Amino acid sequence: VGREALVQIDRERFEVHAVSRRPLAAAPEGIAWHAIDLLDARETAALVADVAPTHLLHLAWEAGRSDYRTAPRNLDWLAAGVLLARAFREHGGVRAVYAGTCAEYQPASSLYAACKVAVAATVAEYARTAGWQFAWGRIFWPYGPGSASRRLVPYVIERLLVGEVAHCSPGSQQRDFIHVADVASALISLLDSNIEGPVDVGSGEGTPVRSVVEWIANDMQREDLVHFDGPEPPADEPDVGHARSSELRSLGWKCRPLHEGLAQTISWYRERMPV
Amino acid sequence: VGREALVQIDRERFEVHAVSRRPLAAAPEGIAWHAIDLLDARETAALVADVAPTHLLHLAWEAGRSDYRTAPRNLDWLAAGVLLARAFREHGGVRAVYAGTCAEYQPASSLYAACKVAVAATVAEYARTAGWQFAWGRIFWPYGPGSASRRLVPYVIERLLVGEVAHCSPGSQQRDFIHVADVASALISLLDSNIEGPVDVGSGEGTPVRSVVEWIANDMQREDLVHFDGPEPPADEPDVGHARSSELRSLGWKCRPLHEGLAQTISWYRERMPV
Repeated sequence: VGREALVQIDRERFEVHAVSRRPLAAAPEGIAWHAIDLLDARETAALVADVAPTHLLHLAWEAGRSDYRTAPRNLDWLAAGVLLARAFREHGGVRAVYAGTCAEYQPASSLYAACKVAVAATVAEYARTAGWQFAWGRIFWPYGPGSASRRLVPYVIERLLVGEVAHCSPGSQQRDFIHVADVASALISLLDSNIEGPVDVGSGEGTPVRSVVEWIANDMQREDLVHFDGPEPPADEPDVGHARSSELRSLGWKCRPLHEGLAQTISWYRERMPV
Repeated sequence: VGREALVQIDRERFEVHAVSRRPLAAAPEGIAWHAIDLLDARETAALVADVAPTHLLHLAWEAGRSDYRTAPRNLDWLAAGVLLARAFREHGGVRAVYAGTCAEYQPASSLYAACKVAVAATVAEYARTAGWQFAWGRIFWPYGPGSASRRLVPYVIERLLVGEVAHCSPGSQQRDFIHVADVASALISLLDSNIEGPVDVGSGEGTPVRSVVEWIANDMQREDLVHFDGPEPPADEPDVGHARSSELRSLGWKCRPLHEGLAQTISWYRERMPV
């Protein structure tokens, strides 16, 4: 999401400073890069003091590993998120957008969800009390270039590209899938708006997981390699329906059709395949 | 509460290590004292690694100043509380009790309440996930020796001791007052139990604020100095009824009668008056 946001953000309107632990291999031009560890409160406060940003888009968390729902590291990101808000405001920040998750609709489902809820609630209350603006984008089920291989869409594409069987769950559960570039444009739209509080970031439509898999197989003409014999989704995977996207759409935000986004994602993986 | 806990805790059963920013003037004997800043995550983690406590009673927060409900410092204590839990567990901790507040019953009432709720929810989920025990004592309205002068009980006592008028609100609101020594014994009982999750720490009875003031004035024989012409309590002061004390009482915990606790508190202030 961060990579996409850097490509899309209007660098004429904003002086853009990006932060990550490691410098990005292919950073867009005209962006100031800062390689720091956001889990280090002192480093973070020093950078915020130095840059004194007016706007903040905070995406950092660790949700890539398979144990991300229960990892104690979620507590570190909770602490980092609230301390970042504190430093941001104290150095003149006026508006922040943080990345949340649809898992918050089931806050008791995991440590991940509980920590996200905690950041959302406390930073929103801080903003209200201290007179600055805060919005919180609850991201639904992102897919697209560069996502972790254990996720459904890249898993199926990668298996089919190498001619191996993809084992999928029966897939009757519905998910609101959203292309990572549409997540980025949604968060940028929010950053440039006056909307405060939690906002769903999703297409607004639920699609059965099975349909997504079948569509990928059909596009790649490898229906033979998809077996719906895999395990059911994890019991702690939140089942939260689809996003209410009207608030984002009121900002002029648009979301590509699922088929278009999947086709683009397949092309991206195909081009990166070792020959 | 911390001072009382150090006096009461069984130093035969526990090897006691106490932590505060400044060493305590009159620390009970047989206690190892550590002067560190719990808001410094590195210092805190280093101390936890060094001591490797099995049990943890975490009371630190800043609720003494008049702006404590909205102070951004609440976010720092939120971060410190979750990072302390993380360090505690990683160095072998098995059971922790944290101090919460009855203000959590109105979590949207203040940044203070929101941050306390956030610690309670996330550390409880962490304990559940990682297999250790966590209890959370929601302290009602403590009074007793050493509390901040802006609070009702010490304010009235101090005014009457110097022969000046105490201006009080009409005082129809009911509060569950609990002596600070009973708060300490409740938290120690919890630490030594198997109870998990939130537990009310209060007497179990609500008393109109006006009655408390009248009782103090009567005991001090200065009814003439109490004027019920002060401002109403702050609109953001939570109005949460009284504690459900059955869980604590099931542990054998007892709470002194309000009149007895107030008389003891008056004596304490009287002895400390400049002659």
